[in-house]
Order: sequence, then C-alpha cells, then structure tokens
Amino acid sequence: MAGCISLLRKRRSSVLERPGEFELIARHFAPIAGPGGLGLIDDAGLLRPARGYEIVVTADALVAGVHFFPDDPPGSIARKALAVNLSDLAAKGAKPDGFVLALALPKGWTEGWLAAFAAGLKQAADEGACPLIGGDTVSTPGPLTLTITAFGSVPAGRMVLRSGAKRGDVLAVSGTIGDGALGLKAHGPGAPAWVERLSSSDRGFLADRYLHPQPRLGLAAALQAHASAAMDVSDGLVGDLVKLLKASGAGAEVDLDTVPLSEAARAAIMADPALAELAWTGGDDYEILCAVPQGEFPAMAEAAAAAGIALTTIGVVTGAAGSIEYRERGRARSFAAGSFAHF
Amino acid sequence: MAGCISLLRKRRSSVLERPGEFELIARHFAPIAGPGGLGLIDDAGLLRPARGYEIVVTADALVAGVHFFPDDPPGSIARKALAVNLSDLAAKGAKPDGFVLALALPKGWTEGWLAAFAAGLKQAADEGACPLIGGDTVSTPGPLTLTITAFGSVPAGRMVLRSGAKRGDVLAVSGTIGDGALGLKAHGPGAPAWVERLSSSDRGFLADRYLHPQPRLGLAAALQAHASAAMDVSDGLVGDLVKLLKASGAGAEVDLDTVPLSEAARAAIMADPALAELAWTGGDDYEILCAVPQGEFPAMAEAAAAAGIALTTIGVVTGAAGSIEYRERGRARSFAAGSFAHF
Repeated sequence: MAGCISLLRKRRSSVLERPGEFELIARHFAPIAGPGGLGLIDDAGLLRPARGYEIVVTADALVAGVHFFPDDPPGSIARKALAVNLSDLAAKGAKPDGFVLALALPKGWTEGWLAAFAAGLKQAADEGACPLIGGDTVSTPGPLTLTITAFGSVPAGRMVLRSGAKRGDVLAVSGTIGDGALGLKAHGPGAPAWVERLSSSDRGFLADRYLHPQPRLGLAAALQAHASAAMDVSDGLVGDLVKLLKASGAGAEVDLDTVPLSEAARAAIMADPALAELAWTGGDDYEILCAVPQGEFPAMAEAAAAAGIALTTIGVVTGAAGSIEYRERGRARSFAAGSFAHF
Repeated sequence: MAGCISLLRKRRSSVLERPGEFELIARHFAPIAGPGGLGLIDDAGLLRPARGYEIVVTADALVAGVHFFPDDPPGSIARKALAVNLSDLAAKGAKPDGFVLALALPKGWTEGWLAAFAAGLKQAADEGACPLIGGDTVSTPGPLTLTITAFGSVPAGRMVLRSGAKRGDVLAVSGTIGDGALGLKAHGPGAPAWVERLSSSDRGFLADRYLHPQPRLGLAAALQAHASAAMDVSDGLVGDLVKLLKASGAGAEVDLDTVPLSEAARAAIMADPALAELAWTGGDDYEILCAVPQGEFPAMAEAAAAAGIALTTIGVVTGAAGSIEYRERGRARSFAAGSFAHF
C-alpha cells in the first residue's frame, strides 16, 4: 500500500500508517489478497497474464451520499463497489484476475466499520474469484470515497467492445431490468406511497437488487465467443443503449413490452404505472446489454441457460445510425434521455 | 468511462455524463489516451503485455486539503498525482504502460479547471510515456479526490520487491532527500521564519520539488537488473527504510552525513539546524531507496550516471533484523519513527 505526505500530519498519509498499520492490514485486508498482492506489504501488486491474453481494466469511484447512503451496511457498500466493476468485466467478456482498492476514510471511522467492510469485500472477491492485489488508504475530511480498479483477462483481440453492433444483430439483456432503480426508492429514506403498497418480500427483493447487484460473470465466456457488442446496464437501459449504438454507429428497434421485469417490479408498476419509465431509464441494473449476430444467438442463449442466467431478446440492431425506435403496446414511444440530442 | 446510479440525480452518476459529456472527454482527456484507451468510449481499457512480461500495478489516492492544497494549480495537482504513481513503478523496475484516473469533482468545478488539470496530466503522461487508458468521473459533496492506478511492465519474476535486501548490500538513494518536506513548508500558507531567510531561488526550488516530483523512471531498468530491493521514498527516508528492512527481515547501518541534500536544503538547515530531521523524516521525496549487492553496485552506479541521476551510498544492510544504527557526525542517533516499536 503506497502513501505520500499529508498536509495535516507531518508524516504518513495512509490512515492505516499508525502504530497498528501492519496489524490492521494483516487482519482485515490480507485475507482478501491473492498471490499478486505480495502480502500487501510492497508498493505494488502484480498481474501475471497468461500467454496470448490481454488485461481488461475498469474503474469505478463511489462516494457516500452520492452513490450509496453513508449508513448503508459497510459490507454492502464493499460488495457493491466490487460488483459494479466485475459487472464491467463480465460485459467485456473478461475473467476476473484481481483488483486494487483506494479507500478514503472519513473522520470517525472505526475498526468495526473497517472489519465489516472488509468482510463484505472478501465475500464479493471470493464469489468473483477476484482477489485484492493492492491499494491505498488515506483520510478525507469529506465523505467516504472508494475507487476500485479491476482487472480481467481475455484472449488477445477478443475484448467485447461497445462498438461492434451490426445491423441485424439481436439485442438482448440478462436478468431483469429496473429492480435497482426501484430498489433505491424502496431502500432509501422517504419511500414513496407505492413502496408501502408492495409486499414486504417484494420490497426486500428490490432493495436487495439495489444493494447487492450480481455481476453476470457467468455470461463472460459466452459474450466473448458470440457477442458483437456488449456493456453493462448501469445508467439505465435507455441511456446505455444510446451509448452502445452511438459507439457502433447503428440504430435499433426495441419492443419495450419484451423488456424483462421481475415480479416485484411488475407489482410496483401495477401500483404506479409511471414506474415503467423508471424501470427502463433508472439504472443500477448491472445486467448485460448485448448485440449478438442472429446466427450466433442460439449458441449464446444456450450458454446463458447453461449458466442459469436469463437472456431476453428486446429488439434488433438497425443500420439507421442514431435512430432508436421504441414500441410499447404496438405504439411508438420516445424518451428524452434516448433522444438524438445525446448523439 | 464507467458510471453507476447517483442518489442525487436520477440518472448518470458521472458528472461528465450530461449533454456535452462526449465533447468534454474528447476535448480534454482523449488527447492523453493511448491505444489501450479505446477512445475512452468503452467501459474498460486494455493492457497488452508483451510475451513473458508481468504487469506491476500501483495506486495512490490524493485528497484536496490532505495531500495538496485545494488552490494548487490544477496542472500541478495532476502532474503530481501521476508522478507519485510513476515513482512507484520506477522503484519496482517497471516500464510504464498506462494509467486509469478516477476523479471525484467537488461542487463548482469549471471547464477551465478541468482543462488545466488535463493539460498537466498530459504533460506528465507524455514525459512518462504512460497514456491514459480509462477512468471514472463522479461528483462529490466533499473535496476533490483523485485516484490514479498505474501499470508498468517487468520481465516475469523481475519486479523489484521491498523484501529482497540482504546483509552486505549497499544502501543508496537517488537525487536529494528532504526537498519535498521542506518545499511543503516553503509552498504552503504560514511559512515559518526560516523560509523568509532563503533566497527566492532556493524557495522556488524547494516548492517546485514539492509540487512537481520527478519520477526516477530512468533508474527502472538498472534497478531491475541490479537491485535486490527498492521502494520510493514517499513517507520519509527514515520511515521508509524501516519498511524496506522490515519486509526484508534485515537491519542497517546508515551514515546520516552522507544523505544527499540539495543546496537549497543545506541553506534551510543552515538557517535552522532542526530542519535536518525534517529532511530525513518528512517525506514527499519521490526518490528511490535501494539495496544493491556490493558486486552489482558499480554497474548500478554506472547506469544511474548514464541516466543522469545521482545515486548516493548512505549505508549498508546488516543481518540484525529490526536494528537500524544511524550515525551523525560520528555519534549514534535515533528516531522515534524509526524505532523498533514500528516493527
């Protein structure tokens, strides 16, 4: 774990660099470290790519009060921070190799908080087979801020790009869409009226989908083998589809009635039909949006089924760059966020 | 550039993900990107290691008000943020391959600030031959916070560790020690009396050394070929020597009179002799501390000279694990920060 000088203290910027530093790292973070972490006592970690493989690199920064609630369970914060990065790796067709964590701890952090955070991080790292290989820990007068940079391997030249979608490709999404955005409402303070009308199990399901997204690592190999383009849905299906099509110089026709929804999301939309738009545009899904050539789609669908991950066709890629035609119950539908202006 | 949902806005956590996002990235960050950045329009970047090479990974988080002054020139903040990471790569014997930037921008950021920041980042990236390959940009209610994760290549198994120092090795440091810590005093508000007694050129030199550390990338290949252990001096020579020796299970004898000082540092110590301790313990040097087997030292010194980087012997590694014997003007000297308690 590297450090540099602090303005506030004479020496040692790392907040863990106090008596006990080594013990804290050894106790809480070393159990998450893989061989490339070198025991977390060096200035750097190591990635050892297999011959003929490239390293996919992705980073996400998360700020308390912006991306999560400061009083969210520390283990949930950690799990989500790693999951959103693993979701990016999955979308790129990459197998996780490791990650580094930069943690800016606010005043008043406790070892108990750190222990719970590390336990959640270990759970996510174990589930993703993605060990910690290094990081940095500093203090901040502001909110808790954490940045995870994650690494995964793909055979050289086989990273799945946003930019490969071609006319005629099938557009598909994994899992269900909208749970994260609805879950934020169900989880956060000041829940709207519709939340009260959900069953407690639906509320719990949606909140869990928001707090604990499941990166679709089980699709990575199939995407790499079959998809022409993919990305994870983090900023909302409608907005992210714009990005994928913009990068690909293509358009699409999308049937909104086919966008897969969970039972809980359906119940929410039943309670307030306006929530359908939130589901399609809200984000925090961490599902995979992909374009797959028609000839490859049966194999892609079979691989998804074998991985136990639902994959649902929602439309088709067209050659009309910049044009997305949405249909809902047979009628054209448009979104401000998915407009041409964004192109 | 990846994103995820924001609690504060309905959609799009990235502060650059507003109308104009693509233009801002294209204008300010794309010029810093290498081929592995894939145009900064995908969710991830790529590292393409040469056959037989491993990737060294290092990360540093920097917080305004903790690691730099919020009103420091934005270009200087950027240059230092990358330099401290390149310094770690140099110490590990690695050749830079690229970096990712996670930037949490405080309220009230302007495109002018961002442009100046990006210009400094480009300068440091060009000087280090280390292009941007991706990142994330978010908003924060707190201070500007930036995390850089940097990557470099070493032949497999040849990363220079902290832990390789052996009894009899020569201990050496690059450049001059103490300028950064003295420069912080010269640069920051409320300059102490001794600063006023320096010439303006000495003040400027020290402040520049604090603001704009020069990563010793010119030593990387030689360290990889000849050093048994190395690290960069970021938390102070005395404290960092403890870390290197602790990792190596060794001790040392160090002659403080041989620790190389700049003319400006000498002038400062002349004005206030107590500053010698600050020079040895203060940090922010971003020089290389290395242990080199005696038989390898002539070749190491020759390579340093060829790179135009001073390399000065300051002591010798001993087999007395946990014991560092400092001598100053022929007398034993000890430091609280370098005490056994830290072991």
